[in-house]
Amino acid sequence: MKKYAIGIDYGTLSARALLVDLTTGAEAAVSEYVYKKPLLTGADFSGIAPDAAAALQDPQDYLDALGQTIRAVLAEAGAEPVQVVGIGMDVTSSTVLPVDENAEPLCFSAAFRNEPEAYLKLWKHHSAQPEADALTALAETRQEPWLPVYGGKVSSEWFFPKLLEVYHKAPDVYNAMFRYVETADWLTWVLTGQEVHSACMAGYKSLWKGKYPDRAFWAAADPGFADVIGTKVAEAVHPTGTKAGVLTEKGAALTGLLPGTAVAVPIIDAHAALPGAGVVEDGKLMMIIGTSTCHIVMNKEEKAVPGICGSVLDGVAPGYAAYEAGQPCVGDCLGWFMQNCLPESYTAAARAAGKTNFDYLNEKAAQIPAGENGVLVLDWWNGNRSPLADFDLSGLILGLTLRTKPEEIYRAIIEATAFGTKMIVDLYREHGVEIRELVASGGIPRKNPFFMQIYADVLGQEITVAKSRQAGALGSAVFAAVSSGYFATLPEAAAVMAEKCDTVYRPNPEHTAKYEKQYAEYKTLCDYFGRGGNDVMKRSVRRTANVRRV
Amino acid sequence: MKKYAIGIDYGTLSARALLVDLTTGAEAAVSEYVYKKPLLTGADFSGIAPDAAAALQDPQDYLDALGQTIRAVLAEAGAEPVQVVGIGMDVTSSTVLPVDENAEPLCFSAAFRNEPEAYLKLWKHHSAQPEADALTALAETRQEPWLPVYGGKVSSEWFFPKLLEVYHKAPDVYNAMFRYVETADWLTWVLTGQEVHSACMAGYKSLWKGKYPDRAFWAAADPGFADVIGTKVAEAVHPTGTKAGVLTEKGAALTGLLPGTAVAVPIIDAHAALPGAGVVEDGKLMMIIGTSTCHIVMNKEEKAVPGICGSVLDGVAPGYAAYEAGQPCVGDCLGWFMQNCLPESYTAAARAAGKTNFDYLNEKAAQIPAGENGVLVLDWWNGNRSPLADFDLSGLILGLTLRTKPEEIYRAIIEATAFGTKMIVDLYREHGVEIRELVASGGIPRKNPFFMQIYADVLGQEITVAKSRQAGALGSAVFAAVSSGYFATLPEAAAVMAEKCDTVYRPNPEHTAKYEKQYAEYKTLCDYFGRGGNDVMKRSVRRTANVRRV
Repeated sequence: MKKYAIGIDYGTLSARALLVDLTTGAEAAVSEYVYKKPLLTGADFSGIAPDAAAALQDPQDYLDALGQTIRAVLAEAGAEPVQVVGIGMDVTSSTVLPVDENAEPLCFSAAFRNEPEAYLKLWKHHSAQPEADALTALAETRQEPWLPVYGGKVSSEWFFPKLLEVYHKAPDVYNAMFRYVETADWLTWVLTGQEVHSACMAGYKSLWKGKYPDRAFWAAADPGFADVIGTKVAEAVHPTGTKAGVLTEKGAALTGLLPGTAVAVPIIDAHAALPGAGVVEDGKLMMIIGTSTCHIVMNKEEKAVPGICGSVLDGVAPGYAAYEAGQPCVGDCLGWFMQNCLPESYTAAARAAGKTNFDYLNEKAAQIPAGENGVLVLDWWNGNRSPLADFDLSGLILGLTLRTKPEEIYRAIIEATAFGTKMIVDLYREHGVEIRELVASGGIPRKNPFFMQIYADVLGQEITVAKSRQAGALGSAVFAAVSSGYFATLPEAAAVMAEKCDTVYRPNPEHTAKYEKQYAEYKTLCDYFGRGGNDVMKRSVRRTANVRRV
Repeated sequence: MKKYAIGIDYGTLSARALLVDLTTGAEAAVSEYVYKKPLLTGADFSGIAPDAAAALQDPQDYLDALGQTIRAVLAEAGAEPVQVVGIGMDVTSSTVLPVDENAEPLCFSAAFRNEPEAYLKLWKHHSAQPEADALTALAETRQEPWLPVYGGKVSSEWFFPKLLEVYHKAPDVYNAMFRYVETADWLTWVLTGQEVHSACMAGYKSLWKGKYPDRAFWAAADPGFADVIGTKVAEAVHPTGTKAGVLTEKGAALTGLLPGTAVAVPIIDAHAALPGAGVVEDGKLMMIIGTSTCHIVMNKEEKAVPGICGSVLDGVAPGYAAYEAGQPCVGDCLGWFMQNCLPESYTAAARAAGKTNFDYLNEKAAQIPAGENGVLVLDWWNGNRSPLADFDLSGLILGLTLRTKPEEIYRAIIEATAFGTKMIVDLYREHGVEIRELVASGGIPRKNPFFMQIYADVLGQEITVAKSRQAGALGSAVFAAVSSGYFATLPEAAAVMAEKCDTVYRPNPEHTAKYEKQYAEYKTLCDYFGRGGNDVMKRSVRRTANVRRV
C-alpha cells in the first residue's frame, strides 16, 4: 500500500494542498482553495471600518481550505485516509489572530463580529507602524540584545506590534482573548488539540531568541502589557518540523483523515520552500518571489546584518543560522500596475492577439534594450522591509515623458524590484554572509522568464529556478513525512521528496554593466527618500492616513 | 453692408478661423481645420527618422487650413469677400521652417522631401537642446546684455537653437534655404508677397531686443554661422498688429478673398488671447491654458526676472513691457495620462455612464479632499520652461501605494501644474512685476471647472475665465480690424470686439492653507531634481536619447 504525506501551503490569496507519494517523491495530486474574502473592507463591518494600512481576513477561509483541499487531493489520487502518514502546514507570517481557550477565533463570536481588531491580520497589515516605531525606540533606549539580530528595527509586519495595536485600539478584545497566535499555530491547535508554537514564526516574527524579551521590556512599553508573555502569549516554543501531535476526532472530522494522523509543527510559507527545493546547505540564497519576495540564506555563524529582518538558529535546518530579508511588494506591484494603469488599447490588443496582459506586456517590454529604460522606479508601493524596515515609504516613478509607454513603466517596476534584491544580496555579503548560489522559487520565477532574465542581468549571477509549482507545500509535506517517523531525518526525506532546480537564467555581462549605472541611481534615490534626505513620502502617507479607508 | 474681420488662430493640432461682425463685435462664424499630420514620424521619411525629442509637421497643413477655414466661415455667415476688411493671424512660436526666395518651403522640393531638418519644427521640438545649451554658455561667457532679460537661458524651443540644429545636422538644407522663418511670418509672406517679421516672435523667441545679437556672438557660436543675420534671417522687424500688406492675386486665390484685403503683422498665439480677452492693462496675469500654459503679464517697467522666457517692450500693447513665462506640459500631460494610464475598468465605466473619460475622472477625483492627496507629481513630462528652462527634466510621480487609484494620479497631475503656475506667479512678484488679477483663457479653463477650482485654491486668488472659446482668433481679428484702418486704435477695436471675462473661480481659504504644505514639498523636489541636487532625470533622458525614435 502506497504511503502519502500532505503539505498545505497557505498564501496571501489562496491555499494549496499537495499529496506526495513517499516512495517516489512524485506529486500525486494538488488542490487549491481561493479565499472567499481576500481582504475585508468597510463593507464587511457595520462598526468601525479598517484604516487604509489594514489587511484583514476572515479565519473561516483558512478552516474551509483545510476541509476542502485535503478531501480533494485524496479524491483526485484515489487515496484512502489510512494511506496518509502526516500533515504539514506552512502559512504566511506574521499572520495572527486572537482566540479563546478552545482555539475559537474571537471574531466568530457575536460580540466581536464587527470589531476589525478581532479578525485575522495578514502579514502585510501595516496599521501597527506607530506600535512598531515605539517598540524600536524602546529597544534602542534599553539596548536590548536582540535588536541588532533583527536588523535594528521592529517591523509593523511582526507579531507584537499587531498585538499591541489590539491592546491600544480594542481593549475589550485584548481582555477577552485567551491567546494571540500565529495562524499556523492556531490551525495546528485546531487539528491536534495541542497548543503549539513554531520556533520559525517565534524566531523570525516574535522577537524570540530562545526566550522572549523580558517582563521589564514589556512593562516599559505599557504597564498593562507587562505580563503579556505567559498570558496572551504562551512561553513554550516548539522546534519547527517536529511532531506537534496527532489529529483529534475533531481534527479528523474537519479534514476527512483518520484520528491519530501525525501533524508537524508548522513553518513560515517562505521558509518551507527551502526543503521543498532541496536547499538545506549554507551559501545558497533562496528567493521566494510572489506577491512579495523573501530572501532566505543559511550560514554556519549567526551574525548581525543591519536591515535584515532576523536570523534564527535551527530556524530551517539544524546546525545553521537562517537569515531572512524581504521586499514587501513585487508581484503585488505588477498586479497594481495591471489593474490601475494598463490602458484599454493594451488590454484590447492583448485580447485580440489571444495573449494574457502579462505576455503582451512582456513582449513589448522586451524590446527596450537592457539598461536603457529612461523610466526609473522605487518599488515601495508597500513600503520597504529590507534594508529600511519602513512601511511609511511609498512608490516613485521618475523619468516620464510624453513618449513614455506603459511597457517602460512595467519594465521599470521589474527592474526596481531587481535593484531592491541586489541591495539585499550586497548587504548580506558586506556583513560576511556568504552567497555562492542564487535559487528562485514562487509563482513569478515559474511563469515569467522575461522577469527572471532581468534579475540575472541585474544581479550579474546565475539564478536556478525550482521546478516545482508547489515548493512551499512540498516543503511542508517533507516535514509531515519526517514528523510521522516515515523518514528518520530531514535530509533523508529531502533526498527522496525535494524537487531539484532545473531552469537556469544566465547573466549577460554587457547588460550587467549597463544596469550598474541604473542601480547607482536607484541607491542614491533610496538614500534620499529612505534615509532622511527628504521625508516627503512619510508626510504624504500621513496626509492621507486620516482620510482614506479601505 | 456689414463689415467683418477674420482672425485665424494656429494651434498645435488644428487651426480655427473666426469671422467677427465689426458693428456688434459678435462672432459670425467659426471653422476649424485639424492638421492631417499632427506629428511626423519615422514612417513619413524614407531617410533619417526624427529623434525622440523632435516635433515636426508638414507646412502644407497650414496652407490648407487657410484655404478651407476662410471659405467655410464666409459660407456659414452668408458673407461676401468684399465685406471682409482684413485678416489677422496668430501661430504657435517658435514654430519655424526653411523657405526659398519665393517663400516656398524647402520640404516641398523633391531634394528635401525625406530630410527632417527641411520640415516645420513645432514650438515643442526639443532636439536642439545641445544648441540651446551652447548658446546659453556662450552668452554667459560673453556677458551678453540680452541674456538676463530672457531669464538667463536660451531655450531649445526658440528660433536660433532650431536653426543652428539645421546648420549642424543638415548643412545642405542650411545652404539651400533663402530664409529660416517663423511659420506666422511665412504665411503672411505667402498672402502678401511681402517678407515681414513680427516683433512679437522676434522679441520673445529670437533674441531680438531692438536688434539681434551681433556678428561677433554668432561668429563665436560657429564661424560658419557668423553672417546668419542678414542672410538666413532678415534684419527688418515689424511692429505686431500693424499692417503687413494686402492680399496679392495669389493670396486672394488661396483664401477666396479679394486682392487688396489688409493683412496684419501676426502675433504669437498665446499673446493674441490678451486683446481677445480685453486684457490691455498692466497687473493682469493672463494664463492661456491648453496643451501647454503661457503666463503673460504687462508691466510699465521692463525688469529682469530670472527664469522668465523673455519680455518685449510694446510686444502686445503699446507702452508696456509684456513678460512671458511658460509651462510646456499641462493639457499634454493629462492627455498622456488618458492615453497611457487609464485602465479599461474606468473607460468602460465612463462609457456605460455615458460620460467622457475626463468627466468620469473629474467626478472621482473631486471626492479626494483638497490638500489630502497622497500622490505628488512633478509635471515635467515635457521638461520645465519657467523657471528652470531645462527640457532634459522629466515627470515624476511619488507617494504610490497599493491602494492608489488612477484618479489620485490624475488629480496630482493637475495639482502639480497648479503648483508650477504658483512658482511662476511668485517669481514675478518677487522681482517687482505686479500681479493684481488672474485671467485664464484656453481650452481647459472653459471645459474643466474642477481643474480651475484647484488652480484658484492653490493660487489663493480669484481667477476669471475669458468667455470666448476663440480668444486667440478674436485677438487676431482685433488686429485685422485695426490694421485695415476700420478702427483707429487697438483700445477702440478691443472696446467693441473683445469678450469680457465672466466665470469666476474663488479660492477656499482652508484649501489654500492645506495646499501650501504640498506646494512646499513640490518646491523642495524641484530644487533637488531641477537645480543640481540630483541630475538623475538628465541622465535618464540621455540614456534613452540614442535608442528611442518617434
